Amino acid sequence: MIAIKRLNSADADFATRLDALLAFEATQDEGIERTVADILADVRARGDAAVIEYTQRFDGLQASSMTALEIPQKALQEALHGLPVAQRQALEAAASRVRSYHQRQTLQSWQYEDDGAGTRGTMLGQKITPLDRVGLYVPGGKASYPSSVLMNAIPARVAGVGELIMVVPTPAGEQNPLVLAAAALVGVDRVFTIGGAQAVAALAYGTQTVPPVDKIVGPGNAYVAAAKRRVFGVVGIDMVAGPSEILVICDGHTDPDWVAMDLFSQAEHDELAQSLLLCPDAAYIERVAAALERLLPTMPRRQVIRAALENRGALIEVRDLDEACRIANRIAPEHLELSLEDAEAWVAKIDHAGAIFIGRYSSESLGDYCAGPNHVLPTSGSARFSSPLGVYDFQKRTSLIRVSQAASKTLGRIAATLAYGEGLPAHARSAEYRIES
Amino acid sequence: MIAIKRLNSADADFATRLDALLAFEATQDEGIERTVADILADVRARGDAAVIEYTQRFDGLQASSMTALEIPQKALQEALHGLPVAQRQALEAAASRVRSYHQRQTLQSWQYEDDGAGTRGTMLGQKITPLDRVGLYVPGGKASYPSSVLMNAIPARVAGVGELIMVVPTPAGEQNPLVLAAAALVGVDRVFTIGGAQAVAALAYGTQTVPPVDKIVGPGNAYVAAAKRRVFGVVGIDMVAGPSEILVICDGHTDPDWVAMDLFSQAEHDELAQSLLLCPDAAYIERVAAALERLLPTMPRRQVIRAALENRGALIEVRDLDEACRIANRIAPEHLELSLEDAEAWVAKIDHAGAIFIGRYSSESLGDYCAGPNHVLPTSGSARFSSPLGVYDFQKRTSLIRVSQAASKTLGRIAATLAYGEGLPAHARSAEYRIES
Repeated sequence: MIAIKRLNSADADFATRLDALLAFEATQDEGIERTVADILADVRARGDAAVIEYTQRFDGLQASSMTALEIPQKALQEALHGLPVAQRQALEAAASRVRSYHQRQTLQSWQYEDDGAGTRGTMLGQKITPLDRVGLYVPGGKASYPSSVLMNAIPARVAGVGELIMVVPTPAGEQNPLVLAAAALVGVDRVFTIGGAQAVAALAYGTQTVPPVDKIVGPGNAYVAAAKRRVFGVVGIDMVAGPSEILVICDGHTDPDWVAMDLFSQAEHDELAQSLLLCPDAAYIERVAAALERLLPTMPRRQVIRAALENRGALIEVRDLDEACRIANRIAPEHLELSLEDAEAWVAKIDHAGAIFIGRYSSESLGDYCAGPNHVLPTSGSARFSSPLGVYDFQKRTSLIRVSQAASKTLGRIAATLAYGEGLPAHARSAEYRIES
Repeated sequence: MIAIKRLNSADADFATRLDALLAFEATQDEGIERTVADILADVRARGDAAVIEYTQRFDGLQASSMTALEIPQKALQEALHGLPVAQRQALEAAASRVRSYHQRQTLQSWQYEDDGAGTRGTMLGQKITPLDRVGLYVPGGKASYPSSVLMNAIPARVAGVGELIMVVPTPAGEQNPLVLAAAALVGVDRVFTIGGAQAVAALAYGTQTVPPVDKIVGPGNAYVAAAKRRVFGVVGIDMVAGPSEILVICDGHTDPDWVAMDLFSQAEHDELAQSLLLCPDAAYIERVAAALERLLPTMPRRQVIRAALENRGALIEVRDLDEACRIANRIAPEHLELSLEDAEAWVAKIDHAGAIFIGRYSSESLGDYCAGPNHVLPTSGSARFSSPLGVYDFQKRTSLIRVSQAASKTLGRIAATLAYGEGLPAHARSAEYRIES
């Protein structure tokens, strides 16, 4: 028996139990923090030499120079051409669909003339520019995912980022050909086989060999996350992601095996992943529970799945679908499946979610790979205030202000009044000079 | 004599000296970090009682309940109606212009049908929603600025944020009527006279009286900045701002007094503010230097201005205006004035800046108050990767994915191939169930 939690929204302690279920806080380990601070300082001071030493120590590589830690473009192309045809075609199809979706996210510059009374000839606007250079962190080992390369690199490329630098640790020298192929496909400019806090430091500060970037994106372990937090400000970073989550709202008319497998697909990520079902039909919930039991033994990653379901999973009976939507907004899940009849009509009731999968055929796994939208999504309820990774994360805005001579008098009077009120007389005088001109 | 640095881009050590000039890193004080961690934990555990105690201790208020720490709407309205007419009109004119500019930033939802071969009937899109509730931190004491209330609250209101909660410490009970008037003008929902890490904690976690928010914006001292960094993830935060900066590029044909006063207007903020001039005309630089000397004694905040100019200011001779633009991109200044003939033609050469003030009449102080664009801008070179505060900071995106039955087969094959390649068989099976249907 899988000891997955059962909740009922009608129970008096439901809110408390739901809060407990959702509670997740990345613990900041003091040991990790100190180690990371030391590595960052050391790489900043000594550059390549420090990066090489840490890579020898942590990844067991015998490289004696940074040249040995860079994968040449030729090797990336060989990885792409060496893929089995089906994998290559799948990768290309996914990249093409992701690119097509993200092209619609591109921000455009705009400006307008302000022709109000006393401000004629004034232009205001917003200029959009891409970041110059971006660093892409790709984990090594078991969580080294080609799809993650596509999802992080393509929005940067669409944004017009000048240069893409990828880092991927290769413990004991083991390279993942699918990851290198994905890097070739999206046109990564340089790839270094380094990882951990030392790779984050190299990207943030630059070394003799690794050029400094303006932003670092991509998932990583606790050391990488701590390093990214620490270099934030020197460079931009993406969100530090928590465990993956899925919330399925089902009306009780989807094949229970489908829902069970969708819950498994999150749970197989790791033991802290969260799989939740909201359904108004108690009998259907039992059918899903039975499907979980029946299908679990067939899953290669059944130990991870069981642990995740028992740790943080739940089957939740609700009064009706309206209540399910309210609870979904409370949870603000990373992935939300609306496995419902006329599912699209329910989208309007969802205010907070990373991505909404609409209808029974829209399994979350399609979004992970090839539907088009990004699979880097806000976790741990942060969809209340943040967005999927997108082209907009690789573009920035500059305000444009061109004040005409006439307008400088009109606006100058307003500014001077407020500046004196704030006790900032140089601000006021600066405006007044233009009034007096 | 003001000991402001003189640099020349032709000097061999120019790049090194420029780097040294720009170097600024917010030191993370271990004592502050520990104090803040304790306050956050205490407010989280004890709520109102802890907030009241810290407010008594740090702000010298004798409040015995949170009710005494809330300013009723009536008092905000009275502050607005009590303002001198000129101040009220200036505040209203500024708010109106800021609102008008920001309305052009509103993001819109979009969706499209994907009618490719094998994916007919699929819909992809992006849904835009506002944040539910936002906290606005307003510093107390000398840096308590009504313009800051406008610049932080108006984009939130334009975005459609449901509820705006403002906190502003009132040490020894002293309230700033201009700040309260600004809060009334922009329609802040509730105002609490609390500050410091305890106010950040109250907003992030909620207390019996203070409702928890989804994002906290607004400037604050080192304790507030540390607290915001720590609650990031529980809630969203805006950038943690460094000292203010201005970079003026001048062709040598602007009244030197204007340029001097524009440099002063940043320098008067605080001793770490940075005022820089780039100019190809050595004789003109001397005229600006003379203007600085002559005008400094007339400035009420001359001590702060002198300290800032001597600490971090510089007058920099460059070869030509093209080089000036390249150096500006290296600096990525918060404020950039193009005090040039035909200034607009030079905007295309600027890739990295928070705001560009185009032409001699566009003094930076107009942008601080009433030009329209936001005055919360990326500092310390972070314009390389981030943007002014805007409506987009109070909206978020949700990806929409509706896959048709037909498309679930086409996309399912791609997803399954990649999922097996990544060693995630539950992902693959979830896609395959739809293929088999």
